[in-house]
Amino acid sequence: MTCLLMRAAERAQLALMLEVCAYPKPGNVDRCHDYPDTRLEHFLASTLFARPALEEAETGTGRIGEIIRHAVRDTNCHNGGNTHFGAFILLIPLVYGGDIPGAIRAIEKTDVSDAVAFYKAFALTSVKMNVTDELDVHDPHTLTMIRDRDMTLLDVMQHSAANDMVAREWVTGFPLTRRGADLLKQFGPGRQAIVNTFLTLLASEPDTFIIKKHGTAVAQETVLVAREVLDGKRSLEDFDADCIERDINPGSTADIIIASIFIALGEGWQWDF
Amino acid sequence: MTCLLMRAAERAQLALMLEVCAYPKPGNVDRCHDYPDTRLEHFLASTLFARPALEEAETGTGRIGEIIRHAVRDTNCHNGGNTHFGAFILLIPLVYGGDIPGAIRAIEKTDVSDAVAFYKAFALTSVKMNVTDELDVHDPHTLTMIRDRDMTLLDVMQHSAANDMVAREWVTGFPLTRRGADLLKQFGPGRQAIVNTFLTLLASEPDTFIIKKHGTAVAQETVLVAREVLDGKRSLEDFDADCIERDINPGSTADIIIASIFIALGEGWQWDF
Repeated sequence: MTCLLMRAAERAQLALMLEVCAYPKPGNVDRCHDYPDTRLEHFLASTLFARPALEEAETGTGRIGEIIRHAVRDTNCHNGGNTHFGAFILLIPLVYGGDIPGAIRAIEKTDVSDAVAFYKAFALTSVKMNVTDELDVHDPHTLTMIRDRDMTLLDVMQHSAANDMVAREWVTGFPLTRRGADLLKQFGPGRQAIVNTFLTLLASEPDTFIIKKHGTAVAQETVLVAREVLDGKRSLEDFDADCIERDINPGSTADIIIASIFIALGEGWQWDF
Repeated sequence: MTCLLMRAAERAQLALMLEVCAYPKPGNVDRCHDYPDTRLEHFLASTLFARPALEEAETGTGRIGEIIRHAVRDTNCHNGGNTHFGAFILLIPLVYGGDIPGAIRAIEKTDVSDAVAFYKAFALTSVKMNVTDELDVHDPHTLTMIRDRDMTLLDVMQHSAANDMVAREWVTGFPLTRRGADLLKQFGPGRQAIVNTFLTLLASEPDTFIIKKHGTAVAQETVLVAREVLDGKRSLEDFDADCIERDINPGSTADIIIASIFIALGEGWQWDF
């Protein structure tokens, strides 16, 4: 039994749910591991509460920046801190456009109103995003500057792309999302494919969330350890325990995996076997 | 941060999600335990796919039997077998009516069309429900008989009440749902209250799902062991392992807990602390 007629909004929710349940994922909240303040239930509640914004995106009308703001607003009503901000930045254009080419077209149409709405969403979160200093979300002059320069949301992402792999997906046409979807299909159906895809992406791209929190050296080290796990030189459980102990969580890779699951599900990848 | 303006449909989904995540729950699928064919992800997918039917119930219009049929139809598109049939029988009237008195009023208005729709939903599942033999869901004459006798859905539940604690909730005004909600509020906020409520109900009422599968003696034994756990004479983990080994899963108690969480959330119980 499959769900061939699944709506895009449901497919996005399924992707959010499947990602957080997959285990073991080094350092992140998963079925077997909570952080003291952010638990499995927070991610799943955020998945449920995202439905109206995802349905809004599904219509393919309205403005992307505003829909991202709605997703953040509606999913912020728990005590678990930021759960899915990065995932929404990827999922909303993908749901809006239906696939990667559609998302790219939607992104190209963003304007200054999207940039302003996005900054308002951003201000609702506690997320750091390494935009250049002049686009600091905590500086009240930022919105004025965005308006004065007539920056689109794509321009804002361009500013962040060097330091943020989620923003980079917008600017470069979702290459990691695409690669993750291809990997999922390659690894075959079910939960284990998510873990394998996670490890494979982690072994090839330094996670920018780790860079922001711990610096480049730690992120590079994580890449190497992920590769050791893939090569069978170290156990995944050991890697996971080490990440948890050092508070290293590859959150941006998780965001991209969610987008990859969304795309792969749309291309027939089976989560359920 | 709380979600005071949460819609009834979202509150029902939250109840479904929180119940299955709570652990350890003796014998049932939970965060730490899957059955080979029914996994955490199946329950969570069913939770996501139930949204349209729960929203239909939220409008407080339409027919209860038909809405239950929609919930079963929409959540059946996975390979995990029955996940939430009993939960929907309780949740749909509660969401429809807004609370227990509202659900009782809605139930009293069911007619033969609800009974027919319910039987069609039933036929989509692999669930056994000990109605009297003359109401066997697998007998094609059953629908004819329901129509000939002009039975309401409440009449059908009356037939099942002796052997099915979910049907009994319909007939007796949701006393266990009410008790579970009171227990949750008494145990305080968060995940542990769900586990404690589960154990307390299990220690007072033989689970009819266990009776159908293993007979009355095993169900009575489960009541006694749950009491031993509450009295500190046996560990919950040991009880859980024993249930899993013997394939004893108190599924009807889980259905009632879901309804209790829905009611408790509406009365201010905090899942998130």
